[in-house]
Amino acid sequence: MTIMIEKIQTYLKDEQIDGALLTSTENVTYTTGFRSNPHERWLAVWIPAEGESILICPGMEVEDTKAAGWNGKVIGYSDTQKPLELLKAEVNHVSNLAVEKNHLTVDRLELIQQVFGDCIITAAEHFMNDLRVIKTESEIKRLKKAAELADFAIETACSELEEGKTELEVLAKVEYELKKKGITEMSFSTMVLTGENASSPHGTPGDSTIRKGDLVLFDLGVVYQGYCSDITRTVAFGEISDTQRDIYEAVLRAEMTALKMVKPGVMSSELDLAARKVIEDAGYGDYFPHRLGHGLGLNVHEYPSITSESNIVLKAGMTFTIEPGIYVPGVAGVRIEDDVLVTEDGYETLTKFPKSLQTF
Amino acid sequence: MTIMIEKIQTYLKDEQIDGALLTSTENVTYTTGFRSNPHERWLAVWIPAEGESILICPGMEVEDTKAAGWNGKVIGYSDTQKPLELLKAEVNHVSNLAVEKNHLTVDRLELIQQVFGDCIITAAEHFMNDLRVIKTESEIKRLKKAAELADFAIETACSELEEGKTELEVLAKVEYELKKKGITEMSFSTMVLTGENASSPHGTPGDSTIRKGDLVLFDLGVVYQGYCSDITRTVAFGEISDTQRDIYEAVLRAEMTALKMVKPGVMSSELDLAARKVIEDAGYGDYFPHRLGHGLGLNVHEYPSITSESNIVLKAGMTFTIEPGIYVPGVAGVRIEDDVLVTEDGYETLTKFPKSLQTF
Repeated sequence: MTIMIEKIQTYLKDEQIDGALLTSTENVTYTTGFRSNPHERWLAVWIPAEGESILICPGMEVEDTKAAGWNGKVIGYSDTQKPLELLKAEVNHVSNLAVEKNHLTVDRLELIQQVFGDCIITAAEHFMNDLRVIKTESEIKRLKKAAELADFAIETACSELEEGKTELEVLAKVEYELKKKGITEMSFSTMVLTGENASSPHGTPGDSTIRKGDLVLFDLGVVYQGYCSDITRTVAFGEISDTQRDIYEAVLRAEMTALKMVKPGVMSSELDLAARKVIEDAGYGDYFPHRLGHGLGLNVHEYPSITSESNIVLKAGMTFTIEPGIYVPGVAGVRIEDDVLVTEDGYETLTKFPKSLQTF
Repeated sequence: MTIMIEKIQTYLKDEQIDGALLTSTENVTYTTGFRSNPHERWLAVWIPAEGESILICPGMEVEDTKAAGWNGKVIGYSDTQKPLELLKAEVNHVSNLAVEKNHLTVDRLELIQQVFGDCIITAAEHFMNDLRVIKTESEIKRLKKAAELADFAIETACSELEEGKTELEVLAKVEYELKKKGITEMSFSTMVLTGENASSPHGTPGDSTIRKGDLVLFDLGVVYQGYCSDITRTVAFGEISDTQRDIYEAVLRAEMTALKMVKPGVMSSELDLAARKVIEDAGYGDYFPHRLGHGLGLNVHEYPSITSESNIVLKAGMTFTIEPGIYVPGVAGVRIEDDVLVTEDGYETLTKFPKSLQTF
């Protein structure tokens, strides 16, 4: 039994829930150490308030669960077997069941209700968020490695910049170099956006070519042993205009202002509001249309959200992004994003690529 | 209003359902032509049994819906607005609502029930499957292009084979070349597996190196304008053993046997059983542990499933994969997979890379 499972059992007992059936790859990884993407098949971990937890996975993955360090019970099922019925045979009466309401689909809920009878369904999200928001040493180690690989990707991207090259050519090279290092999964679709294409907050990489005087925006992240990184850097290609530079400096000031405020006890909304104020004072208040950041861990976007309204008190061990941006259509798009760890007395940025304006 | 929406409205009226709220990227693409991945945000199309359909998307994507050819009503929402409430204001009383039960999450169902009141929730899957299973001319055109790019990827992979190269190096080069052609999305995680690693039906690409005498298995597909391809080829690197060759020939005979049976009126299970029999007769019956194939379209795995028990009568316009395999641990893993279109009087394979054993 893992420490995480023990902690979940404490929540379950406190809240008088009979058990939790967790079904997302992230929560199965978190509780069992076993990471798998089952596609249409069932992957789940059953955690009763008291007693033995059970990992449920396709039969052909049973050996992999042991290799991943899971010493508990496993139900491996074949394609002709019904995993929930195999589980039911092992489980006492359940009258109150916690599930991941933001992950479980309606048809699967109906199946659970058929097999387990009419039980009260409660959300597992709040206690899973509570637990997952504070990262352990071994999680932080992986997040650091993921961030280091994101830095490497930005370096690679910068070294690929060349007049007339397309966004997709640069993107292809970045992911190629990462794969050669063993990274087969990006934490989201890599963005390489240049010039006008970067001036929309939702541009997609395509055939736009890099030209002198462009600001080029890279937003990317990798998955390392299940843990995500997420970095944005904007760099200059050749000489840029005073307005472009002005926008860049405003974003950088906003990012540094929020960053320097990070320490235990601060409210998440304060960070967003402070960064927003810097951008407003610089005259670009209408061009920062998104939240300041988001939690980062097994999911690239997870709890907590860093918005002007999110009143989460920061604690040591939390990790999230800080990523202000300014997008003036037709003029420039700049975003600067770091992965940040709250430490006992302040913060550490996990992403290290320089933030003073880099020109290539 | 698109033809697809008209057809859905006929189903809704026939089944006395007031409307359908479709939420998957695939079904939104299918009904509106607009393709987007909204991540945590809502993307949906509301199709009433009678009256005007409404596309719901993040505000910043409204322009893109028009560019994609959607001329109907759009609700674009900001991050502080509640998309379902905006929709509710436009919609009459709903007492019977169809949703995608295999896509909609439980928390979103609860939100729908809060906003729309207690209505009967029915599954949209059966009529969406019915509709989507027969491909239109324009869908077939895209599937052919996706298959052509999959062939190109296999050619690239073969030209990269070299003693001592790792699986990941080959994989990286394949995806790099595809990106340079503008393909940014694979339809699933690319597989390059060599030697022993290919002899498990669920191996993952890694640091295994290509060696003389290996069978090398490639399984990959691309997304082209929303449509997926899925090809597997197994090739020889250097001289292989008689057993390896024997296994290859058995898989090829099984694939060709099933393929040649494809025409309107045949039952899907007959294909699976026929291919399975060839493999059993060759003495490898215990080593073909998966279904023969699966439907292919906007999803890489969609309706219908081609198994020994799936009694779907084939019709012209259906597209699916045929992919028998034999995996003898420690000896060899071989799979051959084509994308197949049922025509008026037989079939056409969309994937064209040669299937006689290729040696490099």
